[in-house]
Amino acid sequence: MSTATVLAGVPATNLSLYRAIRFKVGDPAALLIVPIAGGATERVLIIRDIEMERAKRHARADRVHCPADFEPAGGLSGDRETATAQSVAECLRRRGVNAVRGDRSLPLIYAHHLLAAGIRVECDPDLGVLERRAKDAEEVAHLREAQSATERAMELACRTVARAACAADGTLVHDGAPLTAEVLRSIIDVALLREGYENPESIVACGAQGADCHDHGHGALRTGEPVIVDIFPRNRRTLYNGDMTRTVVHGAVPPAVAAMHAAVAAAKRDAIAAIRPGVSGDAVHAATLASLAARGFASGQPKETGVAVISHGTGHGIGLEVHEPPLLAPKGPPLVVGDALTVEPGLYALGVGGVRIEDLVVVTPAGCQNLNTLPEGLDWR
Amino acid sequence: MSTATVLAGVPATNLSLYRAIRFKVGDPAALLIVPIAGGATERVLIIRDIEMERAKRHARADRVHCPADFEPAGGLSGDRETATAQSVAECLRRRGVNAVRGDRSLPLIYAHHLLAAGIRVECDPDLGVLERRAKDAEEVAHLREAQSATERAMELACRTVARAACAADGTLVHDGAPLTAEVLRSIIDVALLREGYENPESIVACGAQGADCHDHGHGALRTGEPVIVDIFPRNRRTLYNGDMTRTVVHGAVPPAVAAMHAAVAAAKRDAIAAIRPGVSGDAVHAATLASLAARGFASGQPKETGVAVISHGTGHGIGLEVHEPPLLAPKGPPLVVGDALTVEPGLYALGVGGVRIEDLVVVTPAGCQNLNTLPEGLDWR
Repeated sequence: MSTATVLAGVPATNLSLYRAIRFKVGDPAALLIVPIAGGATERVLIIRDIEMERAKRHARADRVHCPADFEPAGGLSGDRETATAQSVAECLRRRGVNAVRGDRSLPLIYAHHLLAAGIRVECDPDLGVLERRAKDAEEVAHLREAQSATERAMELACRTVARAACAADGTLVHDGAPLTAEVLRSIIDVALLREGYENPESIVACGAQGADCHDHGHGALRTGEPVIVDIFPRNRRTLYNGDMTRTVVHGAVPPAVAAMHAAVAAAKRDAIAAIRPGVSGDAVHAATLASLAARGFASGQPKETGVAVISHGTGHGIGLEVHEPPLLAPKGPPLVVGDALTVEPGLYALGVGGVRIEDLVVVTPAGCQNLNTLPEGLDWR
Repeated sequence: MSTATVLAGVPATNLSLYRAIRFKVGDPAALLIVPIAGGATERVLIIRDIEMERAKRHARADRVHCPADFEPAGGLSGDRETATAQSVAECLRRRGVNAVRGDRSLPLIYAHHLLAAGIRVECDPDLGVLERRAKDAEEVAHLREAQSATERAMELACRTVARAACAADGTLVHDGAPLTAEVLRSIIDVALLREGYENPESIVACGAQGADCHDHGHGALRTGEPVIVDIFPRNRRTLYNGDMTRTVVHGAVPPAVAAMHAAVAAAKRDAIAAIRPGVSGDAVHAATLASLAARGFASGQPKETGVAVISHGTGHGIGLEVHEPPLLAPKGPPLVVGDALTVEPGLYALGVGGVRIEDLVVVTPAGCQNLNTLPEGLDWR
């Protein structure tokens, strides 16, 4: 039996395929890792015809073809994705491959056409997962670059809040206009765009809105209330993401918010101290919970007004996707060198709002390295 | 045998799933369309726990669950995607479903866990394809809105080129600085961001660069040369895309470029005149080629300096993805009412560059409606 490995999809959105070939395109493509003589393998990339020359120069593949190079007896479909799947099956058939190992992301249409060509398909759900988790030096450099841009946008955002004027009703004013969540998001977006980043909707959640850890926030920002700012942009060139959170208060910090913040900062420190290869994501999250419990804060959904709890895990893997394995959460797996992780404890209280601090760390042989350098305080004046 | 239909993936990138539920989230989710009594079906959405309340308010589903609601005997994985796939299998097992119809985009990990639970999986490669092609009134409104924003950015871009100053060496100058492809792209990006659009790298290809129809362009823009401007932004709220191209010349238009432009404009008109339900994408492309041939231009790759040819199809479907079925190209299928299509003939000559004009049309019972209103000329002063 001759078995090939197949990754396929649209590289611009199937990041496992993108990572394997390091070549971005918005049309279907497939990477076939095919056995050749002597126990070696050959990497065959099938891609849209007009992308072939660019792919030959830049993609990580030994050979670059287009679907028309592998037209089956019945002809290729006029549908681009179908034709790509047909050509994958025909290419493998010609090479005498009779079984395929697909990764978890393989679109079912590829399995469909492989099976129709008499080629067996098995899913290896672990294929590529550990490989993607263990970031290499180039990827860590991309993450560092992204997090650095994220920090510049964060500093701008927090200072814009902290240095805003304040109207008589307690709402903030920037450049003579109301400083809303929407305005602050736009300031963040433009700053990141100028640095070469696309930026999904940032969280800017003021006061009570922040009690729901996934409310993105809207409307007026107000003095004396915590504003959660969570930014997770993607570098348009490298496709790697940054992700960080700070909480800023304009004016006087309410004592309850100060207490929540002190506990969250300590929990982040304790979680980071727990991170090293072999320790599980579950254990790191337990360290977060123990740290918060020692300061009187429990885990759960915010239910009682004024009672702050942590309502989510400690963090998640990050790389070509903002959310990727592993989780720092119950059942989270053992960490490996190169895992890039957000560490983002938070506390949320109905009627008060939320406090969250999020850094990005990379697991090293001895522990981890924090890619963040910005202060974590509430006061950004 | 009881058969359910399953769509799954990350709604932010699996647009077939997004379209079915109209709910955007960056974590794994699955929609199960399950048979119930009386021949009816029920739509069950499985989604990350913290998204459930928002999904109950906004997602197109009868029931909203999280993976923990369907924990199998062996427990759920600590990996979010694996747990979602396990819960899909367990939910269907509890409902007595023993076969699943998956669409072409279903990630293989879902098939893997369904098969492990004794549930048969078949790919229906046509499932959802025609449904996605036939845009409803709401979708057409989203496309019109996106194309309208694209036109405003295009007008800004073309006027910026046409009204630029010109240095002694023929390079263009804007606001006292060199007007490069990169600067023009940034002007386009910022304008679109302010309208609520993310904008993948626009094509701004001046002179000889434009001869490669997928060269995105770089460096100085020059007077007396065609500049292809191709913009395809995505509305951040609706996720629908615009896509259009104009070609602009600063200063005097070279006669060869004027001839190419006249032929391309006529080809676009002739292609659009051919579009109606039942006509194939293949036939529309043939109309483009016939129109160009009547003016002396052939199809192929640009090979001889100064000889202009068309080197790509006439257009493609567009909606939640910039490129989606059907193609207006060889073997393109019969069109249906609601198909949204780009019509973008172009001519490319080594040493001269390219001329492309692209509109977006929607197929109607009687023909098609053009969503573009901007002029198509080369002179934007």
